[in-house]
Amino acid sequence: MERTYINEAQKAIGGTVKVQGFIENLRNSKYMAFIVLKDITGKLQITVEKEDHPDLVDTIDQLTPDSVITVTGKVVENDYVKMGGVEMIPESIEIESIANALPIVRKEIAATKKKKAVERSSIDQRIDYRWIDLRTDENQLMFKAQSCFVNAMRKFLLDRNFIEIHTPKLIAAASESGSEVFKVDYFDRNAYLAQSPQFYKQMAMAAGFERIFETGPVFRAEKSYTNKHSTEFSGFDLEFSYITSYKDVMKMEEELLTAGLQAVKDNYGDQIKEMFGQEVIVPTTPFPVVKLADLYKGLEEEFGYTVDESEKGDLTTEAERLSYEWVKKHYGHEFLFITDYSAEKRAFYHMRDENGVPQGYDLIWRGVEITTGAQREHRYEVLKKQAEEKGLADDVKFYLEFFQYGCPPHGGFGLGIDRLTMLLCGLTIKDAEFLFRGPNRLTP
Amino acid sequence: MERTYINEAQKAIGGTVKVQGFIENLRNSKYMAFIVLKDITGKLQITVEKEDHPDLVDTIDQLTPDSVITVTGKVVENDYVKMGGVEMIPESIEIESIANALPIVRKEIAATKKKKAVERSSIDQRIDYRWIDLRTDENQLMFKAQSCFVNAMRKFLLDRNFIEIHTPKLIAAASESGSEVFKVDYFDRNAYLAQSPQFYKQMAMAAGFERIFETGPVFRAEKSYTNKHSTEFSGFDLEFSYITSYKDVMKMEEELLTAGLQAVKDNYGDQIKEMFGQEVIVPTTPFPVVKLADLYKGLEEEFGYTVDESEKGDLTTEAERLSYEWVKKHYGHEFLFITDYSAEKRAFYHMRDENGVPQGYDLIWRGVEITTGAQREHRYEVLKKQAEEKGLADDVKFYLEFFQYGCPPHGGFGLGIDRLTMLLCGLTIKDAEFLFRGPNRLTP
Repeated sequence: MERTYINEAQKAIGGTVKVQGFIENLRNSKYMAFIVLKDITGKLQITVEKEDHPDLVDTIDQLTPDSVITVTGKVVENDYVKMGGVEMIPESIEIESIANALPIVRKEIAATKKKKAVERSSIDQRIDYRWIDLRTDENQLMFKAQSCFVNAMRKFLLDRNFIEIHTPKLIAAASESGSEVFKVDYFDRNAYLAQSPQFYKQMAMAAGFERIFETGPVFRAEKSYTNKHSTEFSGFDLEFSYITSYKDVMKMEEELLTAGLQAVKDNYGDQIKEMFGQEVIVPTTPFPVVKLADLYKGLEEEFGYTVDESEKGDLTTEAERLSYEWVKKHYGHEFLFITDYSAEKRAFYHMRDENGVPQGYDLIWRGVEITTGAQREHRYEVLKKQAEEKGLADDVKFYLEFFQYGCPPHGGFGLGIDRLTMLLCGLTIKDAEFLFRGPNRLTP
Repeated sequence: MERTYINEAQKAIGGTVKVQGFIENLRNSKYMAFIVLKDITGKLQITVEKEDHPDLVDTIDQLTPDSVITVTGKVVENDYVKMGGVEMIPESIEIESIANALPIVRKEIAATKKKKAVERSSIDQRIDYRWIDLRTDENQLMFKAQSCFVNAMRKFLLDRNFIEIHTPKLIAAASESGSEVFKVDYFDRNAYLAQSPQFYKQMAMAAGFERIFETGPVFRAEKSYTNKHSTEFSGFDLEFSYITSYKDVMKMEEELLTAGLQAVKDNYGDQIKEMFGQEVIVPTTPFPVVKLADLYKGLEEEFGYTVDESEKGDLTTEAERLSYEWVKKHYGHEFLFITDYSAEKRAFYHMRDENGVPQGYDLIWRGVEITTGAQREHRYEVLKKQAEEKGLADDVKFYLEFFQYGCPPHGGFGLGIDRLTMLLCGLTIKDAEFLFRGPNRLTP
């Protein structure tokens, strides 16, 4: 018999179907057994009256929570059962895999008259057994929503003549912006892990590909122990040619994110609201834009937040957080583009205007930076000078060559997929990565 | 004025449009100048009668092949012009980027009465300047087709409840199959680069994700100098639960590839035929299947090909190549599934039947192996024993844990995106990777 998904089985009242999944809950008493079976689509109660099914008793006695079984049986209505108002009366139960006693507590177990509450394991303990932790409804929903988000963005781009490319992560030179990279033993020499596909997506512009995007891992050898940093995460990067200003880049990004969030809302909005308490809001376009200096003025006026003049070229972490309050109040919006950063604080490859102002932006969502975008400097002589100013000319020599043989004006940005997911569900990065990687974390 | 793509400009006869692109060809004589402008959609001749446009002469004199320009002008019919039977009479020409003399010859330049032929640069020279090499029609087509292929396969899977995940490439343990991995300096310890997402896509099965896929880089620290190996390439991997045999995996793969090739044929079949001389053939399903021993018998009968008994547990390179002749002759097909390899030659995580025969296959396309697929061993005790037999039990300890707390039966396979592209276009791996990586190649 073909397997039936549980959400379909619930509709097959009166029929006999085969279902397969993990045992989410198990009550095995003298005369009755109740199994809550969970698959990727839902949950089904399996009810066994042992008197009617002496042949199943041995099997049932072997079962443990989280074991995987195959059950064939009849689906019948039962108004007292929560899960779709149906239950299954099994004809056969086959064991696919027996689970040992679980080493983590996925969710707090409330106190009863007889027992004290059992505390939820810490996120670090849960990551040790991430595959067990990922079995919760919340975590499965999170990754379904992420897959939906990313693929809606891909579709948006493919529909607009973007080509998906795959650039190497093993690179010969150590640096893009001077921050730290991982070193790799590469036969008789060293290689390094790319901090972003920045140089290669720009290479695709010099190759005349015009519009490209890439999803892939990016690596950051930084000893950060915040709620939003990790040493490896998934990037969603794009770059496109023949723009006239960084404003074209901002427009592309706001439309892209809107398309992604629309798809998530349509498919998973209600569930995200229910399980994470987070409203999925499809933003209106254009997104609000503010110059960095004006934002600092606003934050001072409204929240009394002041920073030293020397810090005003960049966004402080506290200002990043407060900017959410500010944009909600002034625009009723979750997103905020911030422009006019100090050149000193921006990458050398950002184009600057005649006053030296970088032609780029950061995008803040719910008080967290999710993107740096810009028009890139495609004029070789200017670019070389900007690299030299930052002391990077030697490291990026190979990259500078891309601009010596013809290159269109272009711009782009990068998003962190895990960070988007984290913000979508209101979590930390450790919760949101399929498998978190940090300075002290390389396993499982 | 908004930019118009060249393939649209060709239809705008009588209109004035703005086009942007690279100068593919340039003839600048005393009275006339002819520019062939190329963008991602096509080519357009721009014709300047200098007498009519003295204001453009200075600009034109600065131009070089592969420079990038913006041209606004009127599109007029001209039956003598190849490119769409139209040309543009420019009103303005703006220089975006001037190209230096090109350091490589992308295509052989045929001899003329006055000049000897100029030889094409070698593939290694061309990779040194890959971004210039990628500007050819052939290379741009190849990456458009690859993007189409991959995204058609993604769509196929998303439509069938697959979730796209992103697994870490930085791992703590060195080995999956005993072959060589790259070592990374990871703060105070070593990390390694994943040779495949194998362990983590199986972890997703233990997590109850049921059906997942991933595209991402895979790393192989092997000193191979063949036409089809590289140290980093893009993998397309999937894994799914509740299969009953490896035959379910084969079925999924043949349907997936058929969907991918159908999309490529529909969108780029004619161009691939024209530019690469390769027919894009949408295969019929089911694909032919043969047991390894039977294939060796067949190759001996038909081609007199014999190998030593000791080699018959695996497919030799020569047998791989000959298998294409064999499958064409017997089935009129380009694909061939080969099953029943020797357990000694297969990964420890392949399930084996009661006779010890691995429950998996290789898939050969046009005489080149593109996949290894299998049902996986999900029973902890059996899996542990198989790992021990290969001397891997310590290295894969963390992986074995995935099977101790409940795991459904499952299987899957991996494809190399670059290898698929290479075979689609009839090229070598150096030609087909966006940027090739080999033991002696880390740049650009």
